[in-house]
Amino acid sequence: MKLASLKSGRDGELLVVSRDLSRAVSAREVTPTLQSALDDWATMEPRLQALYSALNEGKRDDAFAFDPHACAAPLPRAYHWVDGSAYVTHVELVRKARGAELPESFWHDPLVYMGASDAFIGAHDDIEVQSEDWGIDFEAEVVIVTDDVPAGVSPEQARQHIRLLGLVNDVSLRNLIPAELGKQFGFYQSKPWTSFTPVLATPDELGDAWDGAKLHLPLRATLNGELIGAPNAGVDMTFDFPTLIAHCAKSRSLMSGTVIGSGTVSNVGSKDGSCCLAEVRCLETIRDGSPSTPFMSFGDRIEIDMLDASGETIFGKIDQVVVQYTPPRD
Amino acid sequence: MKLASLKSGRDGELLVVSRDLSRAVSAREVTPTLQSALDDWATMEPRLQALYSALNEGKRDDAFAFDPHACAAPLPRAYHWVDGSAYVTHVELVRKARGAELPESFWHDPLVYMGASDAFIGAHDDIEVQSEDWGIDFEAEVVIVTDDVPAGVSPEQARQHIRLLGLVNDVSLRNLIPAELGKQFGFYQSKPWTSFTPVLATPDELGDAWDGAKLHLPLRATLNGELIGAPNAGVDMTFDFPTLIAHCAKSRSLMSGTVIGSGTVSNVGSKDGSCCLAEVRCLETIRDGSPSTPFMSFGDRIEIDMLDASGETIFGKIDQVVVQYTPPRD
Repeated sequence: MKLASLKSGRDGELLVVSRDLSRAVSAREVTPTLQSALDDWATMEPRLQALYSALNEGKRDDAFAFDPHACAAPLPRAYHWVDGSAYVTHVELVRKARGAELPESFWHDPLVYMGASDAFIGAHDDIEVQSEDWGIDFEAEVVIVTDDVPAGVSPEQARQHIRLLGLVNDVSLRNLIPAELGKQFGFYQSKPWTSFTPVLATPDELGDAWDGAKLHLPLRATLNGELIGAPNAGVDMTFDFPTLIAHCAKSRSLMSGTVIGSGTVSNVGSKDGSCCLAEVRCLETIRDGSPSTPFMSFGDRIEIDMLDASGETIFGKIDQVVVQYTPPRD
Repeated sequence: MKLASLKSGRDGELLVVSRDLSRAVSAREVTPTLQSALDDWATMEPRLQALYSALNEGKRDDAFAFDPHACAAPLPRAYHWVDGSAYVTHVELVRKARGAELPESFWHDPLVYMGASDAFIGAHDDIEVQSEDWGIDFEAEVVIVTDDVPAGVSPEQARQHIRLLGLVNDVSLRNLIPAELGKQFGFYQSKPWTSFTPVLATPDELGDAWDGAKLHLPLRATLNGELIGAPNAGVDMTFDFPTLIAHCAKSRSLMSGTVIGSGTVSNVGSKDGSCCLAEVRCLETIRDGSPSTPFMSFGDRIEIDMLDASGETIFGKIDQVVVQYTPPRD
């Protein structure tokens, strides 16, 4: 099943979208929003699946052409957004570029940060940033959405709590990061917006590519029409999603609608390229002594996508332009 | 105006509570939840104020005795919880206890972390923690709730976005903190729950004690009946709330219902005691070479309160017991 949210108020209007993303139908006969669906998933999921089946079989007269440009993030706002850094090879590379060792514990203890769950934007929304000097970057990631997770679950127990999958662009302001990490309280100003693919999909939509823990497909990041990378999200993921869930639920429960991110997808050696410019710049620094690829400028377009075995987009494409934001005057 | 949420579903049922906290009335004729009120505050606030006036004047036949034990956190779940460390004297003390210098920049650049906004609990809810070995502590703080704040606001502009005030207990697991801060990604497992006073109040309820930026009253923290501290929240607050809002909104807008915390209230010299055990232990370490006060144990009771000039509680009291949590079995 594929779900999207039409822009409407603060929480959108839940849409059920056909498998090929061509048609959609409002889910209002079942529940108004994706959060309300997740709040009672056991009841809502079969009803939404019935609607999805009817839509795919052409039995819904009220179906209309699906327009991803009219969509907000599938969860336009959420109660919990935690982003991992599960591809430790990426962290190792970043450290190597600045001549630092990776602590051995990083291979065993997941690295996560709490993100801004009120700052989710749609796949085609502009990325508004005040200054190019902040070092604007994208990060292409896989995310999962959970139902209610009790505190203290094991990774094995955590598997059953993965309800939806999708992709995000975790917009990062690289030049604000060193000062924030130096204060040890984590990212805040340096992680302004998170953009989502137009749809989230239930795990069954992924077929063999989803093994219950990792998504084994290339994640494609394209900047101004040039492919920056397409590393496989199922390769070199040090901490799989059930492990991340168990880590996040160590000392408290997670509420239904919790979004957990993989962090920038990265493969050892980066032979298929990178999912953020920071990694490209680190590779250049290691090779040449300094980076040559600039961060993003106003007007730059970033596309993030994942294709199935037959070359069709699974979640729809993130396709955004960076634009200058002007703050309010006194 | 004073607002609370009766435990009911995931978002509670909004109550308007009388000034003396003795009586309450459902706000359902205006709006169902506090979040829905904040989502359209300009419309809802005058309607809720009318209800509040009628309640205080004894003109509501449907009023009932207010029971804070039946209440969830006023916002049972929120989209954004950011906690500052605005009393830099506290940070300086913690550093001093471990023999570290405070960077000069800490006096000019606010320290904030993103907290778990899906982990808000009521004033009388138990604090469930799996292990005493995690170093269970309370932190008594003042919080404000904003409406929609555009990115890039100045502190002066930020003043008009403060809609509600209250108190919280930012439960902290001290023995999990060093490893998390060492990873630089901020607190996550070490900040499990945040408890709120039964009511939040509009700024006008604070009278002269609220100057639009700081709340000038002692914040009382009592452990097992013993007063641990009552420092004045209006004293030694290095970064006032408008400054914190402007810091938080530097690179993105904040959505209505954003909760911003002051961090542990602390006065230079701690002559009126402390608002967390970590500070008590730091003072002992500086004086004696090592701490003598233990962290909290199962069964310990923590009370957090703020009284007005006539000795009456303003927001109601946080009054919680720490209990052992048992995770689910396989």
